[in-house]
Parts: sequence; structure tokens; C-alpha cells
Amino acid sequence: MRILGVDPGSRAAGWAVVEVGARATLVAAGVLRPGAGRPLHERLGLLYDGLSCVVARERPDEAVVERVFAGVNAQSLITLGEARGVLLLALARAGLPLHEVTPAEVKRTVAGNGAAEKEQVRRMVQSLLPGSGRLALDAADAAAIALCHAFAGAGRLARLAATPAGPARSPGVAGSWRRRPSG
Amino acid sequence: MRILGVDPGSRAAGWAVVEVGARATLVAAGVLRPGAGRPLHERLGLLYDGLSCVVARERPDEAVVERVFAGVNAQSLITLGEARGVLLLALARAGLPLHEVTPAEVKRTVAGNGAAEKEQVRRMVQSLLPGSGRLALDAADAAAIALCHAFAGAGRLARLAATPAGPARSPGVAGSWRRRPSG
Repeated sequence: MRILGVDPGSRAAGWAVVEVGARATLVAAGVLRPGAGRPLHERLGLLYDGLSCVVARERPDEAVVERVFAGVNAQSLITLGEARGVLLLALARAGLPLHEVTPAEVKRTVAGNGAAEKEQVRRMVQSLLPGSGRLALDAADAAAIALCHAFAGAGRLARLAATPAGPARSPGVAGSWRRRPSG
Repeated sequence: MRILGVDPGSRAAGWAVVEVGARATLVAAGVLRPGAGRPLHERLGLLYDGLSCVVARERPDEAVVERVFAGVNAQSLITLGEARGVLLLALARAGLPLHEVTPAEVKRTVAGNGAAEKEQVRRMVQSLLPGSGRLALDAADAAAIALCHAFAGAGRLARLAATPAGPARSPGVAGSWRRRPSG
């Protein structure tokens, strides 16, 4: 089962595809960065196209998107919602079963603490996905979102083997992608 | 010049196409109502498809979308942003030049008062667009948004002739459309 996790954002939207079976391995991960200098509608189009391209390349079976509840101010919430809307639309148009998780669920499941810091989540993701290397924070969040959906409530995270996996595939698309540094 | 005004919303997104020349006339107007009972991603898809269909049928030259700054709570702002995001994407994908106006600009331009009530905006829209009949509030807002963009700063609203225009075309699509009652 391949699960695509998405950490929605307007400046940076993290994504990660995790293959989950007897153990979990990272297939690919990245961050969509549409560029702050472009007009809003262009940025939304780049997020939509970027995630559509991820789905076409990595062929996940399901997608999980983090819910958002808080922002610095009303404008930042609207902007985040706009990004989240087009990301959800891209996943829906690809015909993927869609799920949502809350930030607290993700942190609790992956780091054992609903108020964990991003860096702590990244460290846990690295230990749960051997061979994944040092992911960008937004990509690590996305991997945590996928893992949370895969294992939440099943108590299965503890069973993940620590066997190193092969190197994850890079999306290999320039510009709006961030390649993972090799682990 | 045909201008499409859009009043973004997740439960109801108003739209109106206004033809602006020596005078302004309403071409068509309606409200996209994706249905509160459906999953979020389906509702977003219906908003996207609905507005894309409006653009294909009515062939506006430009589009104007209202900006949003306030909401009841964080969740309502996120939800509104999600709807606004897919509506902006639909307009951008149709290749339309896109503009934004603030609610205060719309009210000030159309009703002479930046804090006008929705009902007051509707009355002004009806008087500025003769023959438009009694529009749904969200459709009247959308018409006000289009008029604001057409005439803001030019002081031209006062010059609009009060000659009754012919009946506006109905979008004629069942379900997610609301037909204007005949004026």
C-alpha cells in the first residue's frame, strides 16, 4: 500500500510517498514551492500541477492531507485554505481515496507527543523510515502524515523494522521540487 | 466588455456576468451550491466545475473575485479559503485576466457606504442593472463585485442609464445553479 502524505501550505507544500507493508519505506518526498513573487492564481496552479505530477509519477493508493486549525491571522488562514483547496482538488481529480488527519494526531502517533516540535517529528520520521536521509522539514511532516494514517490506532509503529531501505527515488523535476539530500 | 464577478463561498458562491459599455446590463447570474452533505473534495470539485462551466457559457473578458479578510473562526476562514482557491484556479485555467476587490471597495462603490448591508447592496444592484429582477443575495453581491471593478474610481456609476434591458439569460443548468426569478 502506497500512501501519499501532504502537508498543505501556500509557500511550501510538503509531500511524501510511503510504501507500507511489513515495514514502511520512503518512496519519494519533496516540497512544492510555487515562488512567493508570482500572482496568487499562478501559485495555486503550480501547486495543483505539482501535486498532480507527483500522483502521476508515484501512483499512490491513498492520500492523506493534514487539517489546519490555526494561523497567524485571518489572511494567513485564507491563504493556507486556498492552497489546501487546490491540493485537495488535485488529489480528488486523480481519483485517490482521501483522508484527513489533525496535526495533534500526527505528532502523537509519530512522536508520542501531540505538541512535538517539527524537528522532533523529523527525527522520528528518519528513524521510522530507514534510509530516508535528512528530509526538508515540510517533507518530513508529510511523511509523518502518511505514517500517521497508516498506523494510527493500530499500535503498529513500534513494529516497524529498522532495516535500512534502498535510496528513495527523487522526483527529478527541476524548479518547484526539492530533491532529498542522499542519506 | 463582459465582466464576471465572483463572491467566493464554500456553501454558496455567487457569480454574475455584467456587460459594460455605455450602460451596464446583467447577462446572467447565479449561485453555485455544492451541497453541505458531500465530502469536502467533492464540493470543491463542484465549485471548480460550476465556475468553469459559467466561463465556458458566458465567455467573460475578465473576472473579479472578492477578497476575504474575516470569518467567524479559524475553521471558517480555512474553508472559505479552500473554496476561493479552487474558484481562482478555475478562472486562471480559463485564461481570464483576474482582479481582486475588497468588500469595502464594493460596498463603497456600489452603495456609497463601505459598511453597507447585503440587502442595501442588492437594492443598488437592482437599480444599476435595470431588468435584473430580484437576485439571490450572493448573486447580487457578485454583480456588485463586477460593477465595482468596472466603475471603481471612474465615477461612472452615476452615468449608468436606467433604460430597462432585456431579460438576462439563465444558465439553464440544473442542480448547482439557481435561476434568477424573472424580474
